Amino acid sequence: MDRNNRARNNVPQTNRRRFLKGGAAVAGLAAGAVQSAKAVPPESELKVKGTTKELIAYGERSRFVKSIRTPVAERDSPDAFGLMFHVNTPLADLVGSITPSSLHYLATHRGSFIPEIDPQQHRLMIHGMVDRPLIFTMDELKRFPSVTRVHFLECIGNRAKPTHKTVTETHGMTSNSEWTGVLLSTLLKECGVQNGATWIVTEGAEEIKGASSVPLGKAMDDCLIAWGMNGEPIRPQQGFPLRIIVPGFEGIFQTKYLRRIKVVDRYYMTYNDYGHINPDPKTTALGNQMGPKSVITYPSGEQQLSGPGAYEISGLAWSGAGAIRNVEVSTDGGKNWKQAELRTPAFRMAHVRFALPWRWDGKECVILSRCTDELGTIQPSRAQAAAYFNKPLTPDFRVPGADNTIQSWRIMSNGSVRNEFA
Amino acid sequence: MDRNNRARNNVPQTNRRRFLKGGAAVAGLAAGAVQSAKAVPPESELKVKGTTKELIAYGERSRFVKSIRTPVAERDSPDAFGLMFHVNTPLADLVGSITPSSLHYLATHRGSFIPEIDPQQHRLMIHGMVDRPLIFTMDELKRFPSVTRVHFLECIGNRAKPTHKTVTETHGMTSNSEWTGVLLSTLLKECGVQNGATWIVTEGAEEIKGASSVPLGKAMDDCLIAWGMNGEPIRPQQGFPLRIIVPGFEGIFQTKYLRRIKVVDRYYMTYNDYGHINPDPKTTALGNQMGPKSVITYPSGEQQLSGPGAYEISGLAWSGAGAIRNVEVSTDGGKNWKQAELRTPAFRMAHVRFALPWRWDGKECVILSRCTDELGTIQPSRAQAAAYFNKPLTPDFRVPGADNTIQSWRIMSNGSVRNEFA
Repeated sequence: MDRNNRARNNVPQTNRRRFLKGGAAVAGLAAGAVQSAKAVPPESELKVKGTTKELIAYGERSRFVKSIRTPVAERDSPDAFGLMFHVNTPLADLVGSITPSSLHYLATHRGSFIPEIDPQQHRLMIHGMVDRPLIFTMDELKRFPSVTRVHFLECIGNRAKPTHKTVTETHGMTSNSEWTGVLLSTLLKECGVQNGATWIVTEGAEEIKGASSVPLGKAMDDCLIAWGMNGEPIRPQQGFPLRIIVPGFEGIFQTKYLRRIKVVDRYYMTYNDYGHINPDPKTTALGNQMGPKSVITYPSGEQQLSGPGAYEISGLAWSGAGAIRNVEVSTDGGKNWKQAELRTPAFRMAHVRFALPWRWDGKECVILSRCTDELGTIQPSRAQAAAYFNKPLTPDFRVPGADNTIQSWRIMSNGSVRNEFA
Repeated sequence: MDRNNRARNNVPQTNRRRFLKGGAAVAGLAAGAVQSAKAVPPESELKVKGTTKELIAYGERSRFVKSIRTPVAERDSPDAFGLMFHVNTPLADLVGSITPSSLHYLATHRGSFIPEIDPQQHRLMIHGMVDRPLIFTMDELKRFPSVTRVHFLECIGNRAKPTHKTVTETHGMTSNSEWTGVLLSTLLKECGVQNGATWIVTEGAEEIKGASSVPLGKAMDDCLIAWGMNGEPIRPQQGFPLRIIVPGFEGIFQTKYLRRIKVVDRYYMTYNDYGHINPDPKTTALGNQMGPKSVITYPSGEQQLSGPGAYEISGLAWSGAGAIRNVEVSTDGGKNWKQAELRTPAFRMAHVRFALPWRWDGKECVILSRCTDELGTIQPSRAQAAAYFNKPLTPDFRVPGADNTIQSWRIMSNGSVRNEFA
């Protein structure tokens, strides 16, 4: 301890302006103890800006923060579904568990862009096998008891490929938000579901109507008719003013711009069954619960470690079947596993942030994570998935349906990180 | 159940375009069962927009969503502190528990606007009574084990006045975020705190240096050196790139643009002691834990009920001493109380959303909420606060220090809502 330093730094008795420049210099003298040689920037470098107008209304992020979503697919598909558009969340840039609404992933299909809906004009109709078909305004919906729950969404197309370089490319089609709305069960009870009903069909107000069939049991359990997202109205790209959240099911079930729910007695095939259509509608519908899945977001592909030393391995885990119970991390290609810490609450069907402090010895290695959910289901490796589906494990082996296999990253001795597709 | 309706609505076998117009008309026929006479808007009213550019990058909210923060005070104060600026969170518009970062309340003082800091250039220095004074870059800080925690912030000026009309005016100087950073205790252990140290002084890089004294016990307990806010970097108005979170303490302690922490052996009086300066520094410093406090945000001042019937009373509760254990709501001016439901997790030193389904009979009434925290402390009424401070309960009675008294709203028989300052 430099007592002279302490004396000089006595804030109230010193010229504060002079102190800061002096303080940085003093700290710099204690060279052995100081990690960085760079001094605290002088005040002259700290520009100030801001007007009354900028300070009020709706705040913005720093111009030094450049994280954006990345389009990963845009094509006129040959199967007559038209333009397909995926915009991925920059997972490598995120911290904590909540995805900023502005960075929530986005998937549109078949030429369907973002409808611009006046919430005063929007209606939700519930009809079909109910005693009382009802049409609700947004204001009427908000008079029901509401719930707020954190849930992830994930597109079934969210899968790593050998050509992918970053975690945004391999896993960026999942995001996590605090959703607010009314339980669908509350509305269905208001309408009175009739005997014999077994499914619902949800339809959105998109240019082409998004529609999905959901088992009535799921509808009565935990489906949410949501108008709120991270504290404010759902963003247009995520379904403003109303969408359904079907917790844990793949993204296509989370109908945006929700305008109609029909209660029916059978699985309805819809345009939304594109891509994973199946001769057996029950298999098609029920095979769409996601995960358990996890991925290390730091260090991940294209990131750079600055040299041997202490780091924190950090990532996200989630399951469509419930809460994440456990995440393990290996730093030797899967030979040994260590228990990671869960750094945010493990809500059901929600991202949880995991982390493991780690000291890198500077040698080439492969890091990976695997999670276990509350049902005890363990995230599989690609080799396990290939064996399960009785296929050879080649680079072009594609997991049928949702791919929740383990993601590996190879750290090179120069600190660069590569997608280890294995 | 209208079987004809069901047959016509069989989605896959019907012209979907024609169905939607027909479906709305059919639903309209069941007049007795339908809440709203308005039909689902025809598709022609649903404009579509969107270009590739709009779909990517960083999403925006709907043009129909107009919630903004409101400046409630802007003045050249007579006490030489210069411009004071408060911008309040529109609490009445929010749902759930997380405050959107763009709507987080903002308080600046003494001419201090928003410094524009390059995070690559930013440093945090920890010095004073430590074995190893250290200077950290942002990258170095992020290599330490991080934590993510939900905490509220609240300005000590957050108090209802008889002239206030809305909950934004009475309570909008509090917000709630998911913060990510490193525990200050982790950094202090790295520096080695010396015997005899009892306080820290935190200093920001504002034009005038914000600085606050925090007891070392609090610093070693749960203070967070945060760079993340709701999943992304802290916004400039909230302290980008680095701030301290002192959970549960009043806003002035949450130093933004944090550049220096000095470990010392006494309470340091600073410019930040403005307004609540006290001859006894221990009283000044230790009297600044907030709450327990709650407020009903719906129905609240200037809102309008559309007539007798079912509503949900909803609001927020928080305490600087820990988690909220219980919230009660009265709809008869405080004679009878009912247990509200907690609709989000009750984290320590965080907003929790409470709600109570309620049937309004159309008669004039006064609604209010009170909360109890994990220590068993109950939010007081203004009358209780006046009695405690041995003052007469007049409209100009001002609670010394933080005001956590109960807020009442009077609902008139025409459905309008007024601030009941009592």
